Amino acid sequence: MTGNSFGKLLKITTWGESHGKGVGVVIDGALPNISLSEEDIQKELDRRKPGQSNIVTPRKEDDKAQILSGVFEGKTTGTPISIVIFNKDADSSKYEDIKHLFRPGHADFTYQKKYGFRDYRGSGRSSGRETAGRVAAGVIARKILEKEEIKIIGFTKQVADIKSENFDEKEIENNPVRCADKDKAVEMEKIIIKSKEEGDSVGGIVEVIIKNVPAGIGEPVFDKLDADLAKAMMSIGAVKGVDIGAGFDVVEMKGSESNDEITKEGFVSNNSGGIIGGISTGQDIVIRIAVKPPSSIKKEQKTVDTDNNDTTIQVEGRHDPCICPRVVPIAEAMAALVIADHILLQKRFS
Amino acid sequence: MTGNSFGKLLKITTWGESHGKGVGVVIDGALPNISLSEEDIQKELDRRKPGQSNIVTPRKEDDKAQILSGVFEGKTTGTPISIVIFNKDADSSKYEDIKHLFRPGHADFTYQKKYGFRDYRGSGRSSGRETAGRVAAGVIARKILEKEEIKIIGFTKQVADIKSENFDEKEIENNPVRCADKDKAVEMEKIIIKSKEEGDSVGGIVEVIIKNVPAGIGEPVFDKLDADLAKAMMSIGAVKGVDIGAGFDVVEMKGSESNDEITKEGFVSNNSGGIIGGISTGQDIVIRIAVKPPSSIKKEQKTVDTDNNDTTIQVEGRHDPCICPRVVPIAEAMAALVIADHILLQKRFS
Amino acid sequence: MTGNSFGKLLKITTWGESHGKGVGVVIDGALPNISLSEEDIQKELDRRKPGQSNIVTPRKEDDKAQILSGVFEGKTTGTPISIVIFNKDADSSKYEDIKHLFRPGHADFTYQKKYGFRDYRGSGRSSGRETAGRVAAGVIARKILEKEEIKIIGFTKQVADIKSENFDEKEIENNPVRCADKDKAVEMEKIIIKSKEEGDSVGGIVEVIIKNVPAGIGEPVFDKLDADLAKAMMSIGAVKGVDIGAGFDVVEMKGSESNDEITKEGFVSNNSGGIIGGISTGQDIVIRIAVKPPSSIKKEQKTVDTDNNDTTIQVEGRHDPCICPRVVPIAEAMAALVIADHILLQKRFS
Amino acid sequence: MTGNSFGKLLKITTWGESHGKGVGVVIDGALPNISLSEEDIQKELDRRKPGQSNIVTPRKEDDKAQILSGVFEGKTTGTPISIVIFNKDADSSKYEDIKHLFRPGHADFTYQKKYGFRDYRGSGRSSGRETAGRVAAGVIARKILEKEEIKIIGFTKQVADIKSENFDEKEIENNPVRCADKDKAVEMEKIIIKSKEEGDSVGGIVEVIIKNVPAGIGEPVFDKLDADLAKAMMSIGAVKGVDIGAGFDVVEMKGSESNDEITKEGFVSNNSGGIIGGISTGQDIVIRIAVKPPSSIKKEQKTVDTDNNDTTIQVEGRHDPCICPRVVPIAEAMAALVIADHILLQKRFS
Repeated sequence: MTGNSFGKLLKITTWGESHGKGVGVVIDGALPNISLSEEDIQKELDRRKPGQSNIVTPRKEDDKAQILSGVFEGKTTGTPISIVIFNKDADSSKYEDIKHLFRPGHADFTYQKKYGFRDYRGSGRSSGRETAGRVAAGVIARKILEKEEIKIIGFTKQVADIKSENFDEKEIENNPVRCADKDKAVEMEKIIIKSKEEGDSVGGIVEVIIKNVPAGIGEPVFDKLDADLAKAMMSIGAVKGVDIGAGFDVVEMKGSESNDEITKEGFVSNNSGGIIGGISTGQDIVIRIAVKPPSSIKKEQKTVDTDNNDTTIQVEGRHDPCICPRVVPIAEAMAALVIADHILLQKRFS
Repeated sequence: MTGNSFGKLLKITTWGESHGKGVGVVIDGALPNISLSEEDIQKELDRRKPGQSNIVTPRKEDDKAQILSGVFEGKTTGTPISIVIFNKDADSSKYEDIKHLFRPGHADFTYQKKYGFRDYRGSGRSSGRETAGRVAAGVIARKILEKEEIKIIGFTKQVADIKSENFDEKEIENNPVRCADKDKAVEMEKIIIKSKEEGDSVGGIVEVIIKNVPAGIGEPVFDKLDADLAKAMMSIGAVKGVDIGAGFDVVEMKGSESNDEITKEGFVSNNSGGIIGGISTGQDIVIRIAVKPPSSIKKEQKTVDTDNNDTTIQVEGRHDPCICPRVVPIAEAMAALVIADHILLQKRFS
Repeated sequence: MTGNSFGKLLKITTWGESHGKGVGVVIDGALPNISLSEEDIQKELDRRKPGQSNIVTPRKEDDKAQILSGVFEGKTTGTPISIVIFNKDADSSKYEDIKHLFRPGHADFTYQKKYGFRDYRGSGRSSGRETAGRVAAGVIARKILEKEEIKIIGFTKQVADIKSENFDEKEIENNPVRCADKDKAVEMEKIIIKSKEEGDSVGGIVEVIIKNVPAGIGEPVFDKLDADLAKAMMSIGAVKGVDIGAGFDVVEMKGSESNDEITKEGFVSNNSGGIIGGISTGQDIVIRIAVKPPSSIKKEQKTVDTDNNDTTIQVEGRHDPCICPRVVPIAEAMAALVIADHILLQKRFS
Repeated sequence: MTGNSFGKLLKITTWGESHGKGVGVVIDGALPNISLSEEDIQKELDRRKPGQSNIVTPRKEDDKAQILSGVFEGKTTGTPISIVIFNKDADSSKYEDIKHLFRPGHADFTYQKKYGFRDYRGSGRSSGRETAGRVAAGVIARKILEKEEIKIIGFTKQVADIKSENFDEKEIENNPVRCADKDKAVEMEKIIIKSKEEGDSVGGIVEVIIKNVPAGIGEPVFDKLDADLAKAMMSIGAVKGVDIGAGFDVVEMKGSESNDEITKEGFVSNNSGGIIGGISTGQDIVIRIAVKPPSSIKKEQKTVDTDNNDTTIQVEGRHDPCICPRVVPIAEAMAALVIADHILLQKRFS
């Protein structure tokens, strides 16, 4: 109700700030008797963490997940799973200099307006570090989905104006961009490095494909599967757009083109992106999200201080020139949480 | 939880099928002591109803709203407002012929899969007629917003490949497309009529602008204002994409371009679309939605029957060749519900 | 969130005032493909309605339930079931005289304080008539429970100081008090009539027994089965106390007495009332509720008017001298809703 | 939804098992800018902890609360407050012996049935230790209430058949029973010690009085203030009954007795317990709860093992012979959470 929980039968609550004691998540509604270890969680966290490659922030954060509850003898008990990732003693001193400034594109200004008060170190609660809790929770969701043989594949589809043209799933984790097109990945990497050298940043598109969701999942009319996915994706900090299936391309299609015809072998096309009327069709669910260029850049920008005096700012420090590679596991986690939740909801009819 | 309610402190629950007794909505959480009449509601419903012009379905539906509770002596009491719109005795006989067929692009197939059973008349619960309840509820939300001088403007921004170039608010209700660009409206109308003559349909983009939302509204980290808006919009049947502010354009922007610089006069640009970190900035909130071409078309399409035999279908009857003009009031209503809800949520800090 | 909904996977929303257009309920989350007719609902409503006997209010209200949605060809579709009970044109003129007075024991004062405004006719939203929606919804819950062979039995256990001593289920509907003890029912009836003749009213205890709930139902630690039942019962207007199993008798028991020992034939006793740690044990679930004497009495009582001047009031009209017989079906309905909801919740583990 | 969260605008989620890594709570919806320290929380936790006196369990647990998020420079930020209480390395070896036995009165049997699997050490998730999180969260609720000058007083009203006769608030924390009647406290203490010596345990009644709640708080018709309080109280492990105001005494009252008359000086009596129609009257809110004798007793009792063989059990270890003194701060915390939540809800009308 007040914003830090997500989900219905599989509900997560995240907490924590980037420069506080740590970040974490409580997962309520995990099925009992599922194997779960800290290593399972760590593996996914490592895909999200800083310092993985030359195109993400070189900050070193260990992001060591600890399970504090809900697991006994290596198995979930069905009770809440509390996971904590303690922050290392971060150096917050550099934030002293900019604590009276609102960084453009950051939530500094809006948090100040909402709460009248904010933790200015790092980005406080609005830090991308909050998503570590989501990724950890996503591991439990994935375990539920595995029982149904549902598979989630995320990748970077576009960076700046470089669009991937081929899809080879096994390439995704082979390049730092997490692109499924080996050749385009090289170009993407170059443009990211160039932007970093210019003290700037670039945006991109991340796509998530969800395979093997059975037909019939989703709750009309408000909690449609696509509506819940849209919310899930838009709740990721850098995301400014979400579309599903043919997405914005439907605008220039005719009904006779966008309708997916059906034959006894199944659907002929998948413009619906696997969801019609808010309910899964059994086809692949396909979502794309528009990821904005990171706000923290070295280039000088105009801003004001908390007394509304004009000034300028250059955001120093080691920031991501393109966040897409690190958004991939987050978007996958959010997709996993939504699908697992709806799978559990549908069980009431069993 | 099971899909037919939306909102937190201002919560609506819709019910009804297109060919049942009627459709309706219960609004829980309306402020007390607000003037409300059936005429107030009717005015908005008339913007949604069929038969308004030559470019929407010529079906005549009266859509007469009746208020059954929650209003006493012309004012809301703070208790649930129940609104019902009885269906006229619709002729369901024509649906007998296609009750064993899954119309491409329709939710026939998915409802059958989810519930194992469906009301095949019209589109049953998945009918666009369900949104009449949303529009009615939106009127109460608007009343709450009016107290805060918040204003919501929806319009058709694009139809097929015709993009509006100018924005003149007062033109919107002057043309059947609900386009804010008088000249482009004429072109849009033509392309819609042409598509209708071809037994086909066209898509488009609807934009909603929300003015005067104070800075500080929205609940991080999951119930972000943009996340809730995305869900609200994606829950409208024909919508396949949602973006906010610069939206999908951020993909090809640099951080130095997409960041909205700040001066003592305020933000220099509005690429954020009025929301940063899930919280309103005080600028206009700007959302766009991709509206697919209506699925019901006269052109012959391949489909299967409920026994999975190959066949074809031509959807007869009077259907909308472009649903954008009628989506405008629905999208406005959903936006009003989200904003009013978050305005009420923020009051807990007062 | 704002009070007029109840339940998780089986959620009801009631609306309506005693002297408005009607009262009703929307049930969201009913299973599809369950037979449901207006007669099914009417049968339960008739147990709640006024005018059934000489010991309840002689008011005649027809309470005719109409199903407006969610049922197709005699079966639930899984979509929301909207049920309305239109009010007959009630004579509200008598309330003109007391519209400036706060009736002792009534919610007049508190509604005025909360909303700053109230529908003074009848009891507005706080009328017992609101519970007609609960009873109607309870019918759908019972249908879900029938599939699991769960049975709910409510009865009046005590009226004033007359306590029932025997339990014969088939007597319950054979006497106007709905007491399971034939002889005590006669005494209860007498004391109720006497109190009515004195212009006064009496209280009592209603008990609800739920049979055949399988072990393992309930959600620790807050949504315990007993916690949800307690809320459900306490939300019925006249209820001032709820206890479960040995209830308040545990206060003077020792642990060695109150613990239910277990043998291979099962539990030796049922002091737990069928619930331990918030989860069902498989034994009968037994709840008792303390029902206050109705507030509307002819005896003169001190009160104030809306300007806080001292005055007195005699509540004229035809009121119930004891509400227990009519509370029985309401308490059963609330119990059915809670149990059905938790049965559905548990299915996620299937 | 799945049971481990409580509240609407002030929502808490507890996690943890008695012999796992720790227990904790996440509080979402705290107001920003409230002073909060670990000492504030510790003070209340110390009232709940074991080993305070000769009449509670002599186990020594430090129960040191750590705040991990949501507080910056000594003040709440409005973001989630995560509090953890690490468990000391508890000796779980003694539970090996009884891991195949269901302790009578314990949730061993029901957890096994629900989840098919349980953490048998201590009482796992069903341990009273879970309530440490509630008490910690209650501190934040109290801070919100202090701003409104609302005060909460809990005390032991009865132990076994010893009923307190006087009420002197300042005595409560002066005796180990937390009784407001100095003389009766001595008798209560004696009966508790006697029961302990007999290897048995005793029950009692805890009362909570809430002062200065303004009139108009509470959300009809389901989320009534008394309904939410009843749920809150019944969710505490040992509680088998809840009543409000005159409570179960209304059963034998007449309407002319139970109605609280009103004069210009206010209500003449408080049989309503400060709540009518689910909304506060402005009088003291008075709740009583029936607390069962602790289940863990040394006396031999019949039970079965997990293969349903008859056997007996004696629960060794250091257990509470009467839990009332330790329930007092828990019941206060739950009351504080409910009232604070409803206070915040009412602000939407401001």
